[in-house]
Parts: sequence; C-alpha cells; structure tokens
Amino acid sequence: MEEKLSELKRRLAEINDLNAASLVLSWDQSTNMPPGGELARARQLSTLRRLAHQRSSDPQLGQLLDALQPYANGLPDDADDACLIQVARRDYERAICIPADFVARLSQHRAESYSAWAAARPENDFATVQPFLEKTLHLSRQLANFSPGYQHVADPLIDRSDEGMTVAVLRPLFAELHQQLVPLAQAIAGAAPIDDALLHQHYPADAQWGFGLEVARRLGYDFQRGREDQSPHPYTTRFSIGDVRITTRIDEHDLGEALFGTIHEVGHALYEQGIAPRLEATPLAQGTSSGVHESQSRLWENIVGRSWGFWQFFYPHLQAAFPRQLGAVSLDAFYRAINKVQPGLIRTSADEVTYNLHVIIRFEMELELLEGHLAVRDLPEAWRARYQADLGITPPDDRSGVMQDVHWFSGVIGGAFQGYSLGNILSVQFYEAAVRAQPQIPAEVERGDFGTLLGWLQENIYRHGRKFTAAQLVERVVGGPMRIEPYMRYLRAKFGELYAIQ
Amino acid sequence: MEEKLSELKRRLAEINDLNAASLVLSWDQSTNMPPGGELARARQLSTLRRLAHQRSSDPQLGQLLDALQPYANGLPDDADDACLIQVARRDYERAICIPADFVARLSQHRAESYSAWAAARPENDFATVQPFLEKTLHLSRQLANFSPGYQHVADPLIDRSDEGMTVAVLRPLFAELHQQLVPLAQAIAGAAPIDDALLHQHYPADAQWGFGLEVARRLGYDFQRGREDQSPHPYTTRFSIGDVRITTRIDEHDLGEALFGTIHEVGHALYEQGIAPRLEATPLAQGTSSGVHESQSRLWENIVGRSWGFWQFFYPHLQAAFPRQLGAVSLDAFYRAINKVQPGLIRTSADEVTYNLHVIIRFEMELELLEGHLAVRDLPEAWRARYQADLGITPPDDRSGVMQDVHWFSGVIGGAFQGYSLGNILSVQFYEAAVRAQPQIPAEVERGDFGTLLGWLQENIYRHGRKFTAAQLVERVVGGPMRIEPYMRYLRAKFGELYAIQ
Repeated sequence: MEEKLSELKRRLAEINDLNAASLVLSWDQSTNMPPGGELARARQLSTLRRLAHQRSSDPQLGQLLDALQPYANGLPDDADDACLIQVARRDYERAICIPADFVARLSQHRAESYSAWAAARPENDFATVQPFLEKTLHLSRQLANFSPGYQHVADPLIDRSDEGMTVAVLRPLFAELHQQLVPLAQAIAGAAPIDDALLHQHYPADAQWGFGLEVARRLGYDFQRGREDQSPHPYTTRFSIGDVRITTRIDEHDLGEALFGTIHEVGHALYEQGIAPRLEATPLAQGTSSGVHESQSRLWENIVGRSWGFWQFFYPHLQAAFPRQLGAVSLDAFYRAINKVQPGLIRTSADEVTYNLHVIIRFEMELELLEGHLAVRDLPEAWRARYQADLGITPPDDRSGVMQDVHWFSGVIGGAFQGYSLGNILSVQFYEAAVRAQPQIPAEVERGDFGTLLGWLQENIYRHGRKFTAAQLVERVVGGPMRIEPYMRYLRAKFGELYAIQ
Repeated sequence: MEEKLSELKRRLAEINDLNAASLVLSWDQSTNMPPGGELARARQLSTLRRLAHQRSSDPQLGQLLDALQPYANGLPDDADDACLIQVARRDYERAICIPADFVARLSQHRAESYSAWAAARPENDFATVQPFLEKTLHLSRQLANFSPGYQHVADPLIDRSDEGMTVAVLRPLFAELHQQLVPLAQAIAGAAPIDDALLHQHYPADAQWGFGLEVARRLGYDFQRGREDQSPHPYTTRFSIGDVRITTRIDEHDLGEALFGTIHEVGHALYEQGIAPRLEATPLAQGTSSGVHESQSRLWENIVGRSWGFWQFFYPHLQAAFPRQLGAVSLDAFYRAINKVQPGLIRTSADEVTYNLHVIIRFEMELELLEGHLAVRDLPEAWRARYQADLGITPPDDRSGVMQDVHWFSGVIGGAFQGYSLGNILSVQFYEAAVRAQPQIPAEVERGDFGTLLGWLQENIYRHGRKFTAAQLVERVVGGPMRIEPYMRYLRAKFGELYAIQ
C-alpha cells in the first residue's frame, strides 16, 4: 500500500508540475512576453494542458485510486491521505469525461481569444471579439455536455470552480441578495453624497508602488515566497507554496485602484502561502473553491482594508507618502472617500454595496447565454440594458461594458463569476468567527498588527488547502452553513453609519 | 507519407514545446523567481525534462523516422524535410541511449547545484559546492558512458553542443592556438600599456541600461520579438522564433561589462531571431552548434562592437549619455581603452587576445577531471596554479577563480567551453566572407548601418537554423574548413597596430 501511495503521489506531482508550468507560462504572458511570442505561447500552453489532462485521465491513475480506496476508508475523514485520495478521485472522474483533444482545442482557443481581447478592448472593438466569444460559448456548452446528468447546463461549469454549487442553489440565493441590496443602495442614493475627489488627484506611480509593497509586507505577504508585478488584469498565481505571485495595475489618477487591488490580491496570496507545506505538489495544495478564495481577498480588502481601524494605523504612512495630496486631508474624509457608494460601470472598482449587483448581472447573463436565451451578438445591448435597469447607468462603450472583464475571453462562459459574491458573503462569516475566537483582533488591526487574524485564518482555513470542500470548511469554521444575514448586517451597519440612514 | 510527416511534426512540436516550457521556467528562475520557489522549481524542471526525454526516445518516433527515410532519401540534401528527418534521427539516436530516470536525476541535480552555487559564490565558499561538483562529475561520466564507442570520455559531451567535434580534433587545435597566442600576448606585455581607467569611472546603471537598449535596437535586435532583463549571469534564451530574450549584468564601475555583454547577447539573439519562421517548433529552429552560436556573439561583440568604425558612429551618442565621464575623452583614447589587453581573472571580461587562454584552461581541466587525473577537491588549487602558469596571475579567491562560471554548476562537466574558442576562430572567417561578398559593410558600420551585414548573415547562416551541421555550414559559407590563420591574422593586425609591435 505504501508503494501504491508513493506511486499516486508521484503521478499527482507530475500533473501538478505540468499545471504549474502552464501557470508560469501564463504569468509570463501577462507580465513580460513580447508580442512576437503570442502564437508559440498559445501552442505551448495547449501542449502542456493536453499532457496534464492525459495524465489526469490516465486509466492507471483510476486503478491506483481504486486500489487505495480500502486504505483511505480505514483513515479518519480528515487525514491528509484520506482527503488526498478523495480529491484525486473527484478530479480523475471529472477529467475522464473530457477528451484530450478537446482540452487542447479549448486551451488554444483561450490563448487566441485572450490575445484578441487584449488588442480589441482598448479599441472598443466588440466586432473583433464576437466570433471568439461565440466559439467560447460553443466550447463551454460542449464542456458542460461532457458531464453526465446535470440539472442545469451551467452546473458542471460552476462545479469546476465552486464544487458542489448549482444553479438551483445560486439562483434563489442571488435573488434574495439582490432583493436586499437594492433598497440599501436606494437609501444610500437618497442620502447626502460622499465626495471622493481627493482620491483622484495625481498620485505618481512610483510612490503608489512603494506604498503598496509596504502594506503587503505588513499584512504578512512573504516576499521571500512571492513577488509583485504589474499586469493589465491584476491577479494572483501560485507556482508552488514557496512561489505565490501577485500583480497589480496602477492608475495615477485613482489612488484606490492599485491600493485596494493589491490588498485584494494579497488576500488571495496569504491563503496560498498559508497552505501546509506537506501538501506541496498534490491537488490539495491550493485554495478549495473560488468562493472561499474570494472570501479571503474580500476579507482583507474590505473588512480589514476599508475599515476605520486599519486606516488609524496606515493613514499617517499614506500621508507621508503623499504629503502634497493628503497632508491636509483628515482621516475621516479619507475613510469616507474610500467607502463612497456610487453605482459605476466597472465591477473591480465597485463599492461594497453595489459590487454584487455587477456579479449577479454577469451570472445571469452566463445562464441566458448557455440556455440559448441570449445570443453573443446581442450581448453588448443586453449589457447596457441590464446596467441601466439594475444600476441606473448605461456604459458609453463596450470597453467599459461587456469587454471589461478578462474571464469570458480567457476561460469559459459559465462558472466565472458566482465565486465573487459567494466570497463576499463568506468573508463576513469567517471574519466574525475569527473575532469571536480572538476578540483582540480589531484592536490589533488599529495598531497595524495582523498576526492574530492571519494566524487564525491560517490555522482554520489556509493550512487545509483543498482538504475540505467549501461547504465542509464553512461548517467547520463557522459551525453552520453559508448565510447572507451576517453579510447584510455588516453592510447595513457600516454604510448605515457612513450615510446616516439608520 | 504526408500523414506520417504531419505526425512527425506533431511529435517534434510537442517535444519542442516541453523544452520551451523548461526554458521559460529557467529564465524565470534567473530573472524573477523568489528564493522560496527553488525547491519546487527544481522538481518542475525535472518533470518537464523527463517528459521531453520520454517523448524524444519514444520507439514510435523511431518507427516514424524509419518509415519516412525513403521519402527523405528522395529529396535534395538541403531540403527542409530532408534536414528535419536527418536531425530528428540524430536527436532520437542520442536520446535512446539515455535512461529517462537519469535525465530527471540530472535535471534535479542541476537545479540544486545551481542554487548552491548562486548562494555560495558571493561567500567564496567552495567547500559547499564541492560535493555538488563531485556529483556533477559523476553524472557527467555516466552520461558519457551511455554513448556507445567513444574515443575519449569527453567526446559524447562535446558532441551535445558541438556535434561532430572530438578531443582528437580539439586538443591539437587548441595547442596550436595556445602556441600562437602566447608570443602575441608576451609582445603586448612588453609594449607600452594602455590606460583604461576611463572605463572605471562611475556610470549610473539607468544610463547604461538605456544606452544598451539603443545599441541593441540599432544592431537589429527586434524588441517586438524579444526583451532584455538583468540576471546574475548574462545569457540568451529562445522560447520561439518570436520570443528570443537576452539578459545583462550592469557594473556601475565598469562601463564595458553591460555594454559589450549586451552586444554579445544581441549577437546570439540575432541568430535565433533570424531563423526561418517555417522551421518553427521543429528541432531545426535553433542555432546549429555552440561554436557557430558563439561565432555570432563574438562577431558582433568584437569584430563589430570593438572596432574603430563602430565607435566612429556610436561614440558621440555614448558621450551624450555620459557627458561628465566621457565629454573630454577622445574617441582614440576610448577605442584604445576598450581594446586594452591585460591578463585578468575573469573569462567573460577578458580581452580578445587572452580570452582563449581562459577557455583552454577550462577545456583541459574538463578533460583532466573526466579522465580522473584531477580530483574536484584539488580544483581550486589546480585553477590557481594554471592561471599563474598561463596568465601570470593567481586568483585571490575561488569566487574569481573556479567558481566564476555558471557552466559546471548548472550543467555537466565536459563540452561546456570549447564552443567559445571555436566561435572566436569562426567569427573572423564568417566576417571576412561577408565583407568579400559585400565590400561596403565596413563603411556602413561607420555610419551605424548594420543592415547589409545582418542581411548577409541571415541569408547565409541564421535562416538555416540547424539544417546544416557546423562543419557543413562553414564549408558552405567560407568555401573551406575552419582555420585558425584568419583569426590569428586578425588579432595580429588589430593588436599589432594598437600596441605598435609590428
């Protein structure tokens, strides 16, 4: 059995290494690669993904898992090896449904589609990306259809990033969330507006970069096991537990862009850097779902990073970095500015109250596209109509409309967005559990000390990697299921006070 | 047959893509990777190299090549497909000798050894790297022994980078070269010395970086298909014909380091960028040997980059970049300084006359190590003794002695250095052939116009990639075999004039 377990780990490490290599090539593509490298890079990524998939669906892997099942059955449910065998089996069963050729074709298309989008977005040229998106939709449906017996065509796609989640659960959940958010947003719209012009002075890129690094370090991001770069679409990527990288995007006329973008990615990175080293090179060495991942980026970005306590410590440092811009601005004015609620066009820069409305629009459009109720060519118009209906504003162009997010242009349609709202909801449940266990956390945050919070998250969430599903993890950590009430209560308290609407 | 040819190209592209992925991971390791990534990166590289090797030695590849042989036989010798099948067969036959396990072990060891060297070199700590080097020697011998029927144990290792070259050819060649270089070096030592203190003023890194980019661009390096970064050991790497990258190292107190280092790497990169795009993703899409590759880096670095004509054009630009340091320095003084001959400790910064003495020392030490006439533990002392004997100076430490070059610490012992001297010899033969064909080249260089020279090299050397062996290529290009006479004549003329010793 010992030998079979080693053989399993050897095979899983090989798959892990091929996937890690793909991630390095993708990171290089978004941060460093010269334009001439595009064609070959698409082919290289396609080759690596095809080989990883071949190995992930190798019948010998299946036999090995069968042979190890009795061993796993004899272990406690939460033993590393038991979880490993279980997760590896789920991955295997998912992989064998998908033909290797399809994986290569999808990968190649993703790379080409990404390149087309990267070139067309600045030109506001939806016509160029439309055929790519149509093919993406076609491939996404095909991908879903490889999975046996789903209830909704989006379910297998959602399952890829939020295992166990379905349209049947998410539709009513998001409907409820929408229903509770709209009156809050309307109440705020009726209150005296906050002025955030102070964030839109000129903030030189170098000083923003330096301050972002300082904040990242202070929060606990380990630069010995990571680095920060600039890329058009900020993200976090993991090549190993010892090499978790973040990227950011700097706007010299929007202080919040890089600052909160960096804290957001640091949240993702703290999760990946906090995984137990003994899980390295296995499928357990990653965050467990996109929802739980996003709970960490949003916890650090919003609950910590946009809190009064956080800025009690950091604001003098920020003033020192930008004395001309902020020297005469009070902490109170700054705190209000970074928490201004205003319906906008761009998801990633949305405030905490309207953010989920952006997500729900995308989630529902994915369903309509997959169901065939919406055609790709009608997407820009549908987008505009939906933004007008839900947020009261209409994008003046597709660049700030349907072409703003990379997801549909570098992945599949379906399952790309629900994790953002799941993450918002969970972030509050997790943070409240942390503070229940360690009541000194808020006071420590006011002193710029994040050790207790980070330690608690590492102990209860990060170190487990993918050992538990999101549902299992939530149950373990908060002692019950995911619920929107704590999240709505948090929003109502914070913004009720800010806008004096309670 | 058409179908078999496609299948061959598909298989070769897969091998190519795995190798390209390894190169991206290595490049990332030397330019970007945080220290925490080391262990996993070693494993990832080992996995990729093992998979590439499995595919390179797959019996089905051999059968395919057998089946295609009649087709190849019916083609002209220099047809792309004929060359492809021939080169693929040689690679296959080389690969099948080496067990896949060994490839993985060697790769893992290379990565670990590189890390140990990178940490130990600044500390001047040979004791730490000694066991790594001993294992490298052991693995190098094993690697050689996989090849059937060699004459000298170094031959199979030399063949990996300079196909067809052997110790039986190189030993007398280098002995002759040594014999002719020593009197030239002695004559120069007896002449009035050149003062190069002007190169060792303070040259800020930013301005050096900018000037290097300008020179690279002017020489014809295409930044749409490449980029420059900084790394501890400058090199050129190719991920595809559309993505050929160079690195450099800047020393603020040595203007020559980054400047000539950059021109050197640009020479390598022009070769790789000049390969015919139709050879992409095949084993023909690379330079044909380390000797021919080095002929291009040295041609551009020395014959062009250290020539009077080159600086007639560039020197005013350099003065504009460094007015304080060079404003009052004449072109003549500058030209003399960059061509100063002085026995030194460091190969990469050696002058044209003594450079080959550095190479020959290393070449002969590789042979002695492999033959068992020299033990790794005695290497530092042997190095010091040999430098004293051949160059009249003794390294004060191992950092500037046996630990200065990355080669033995990131590759194998054997075959690592001969290419540098072969390149020096060939650079003159190739350049003279170019000027015979296009006599206007020197005058164009004086005007900062490198188009005719680059075009001739592309047409006659670069575009062919690996279609021809080094020996075949030399025959085609210069109408005869490699000879040291043109090289020695070039050195005697240039340095005879500089040092007034004729």
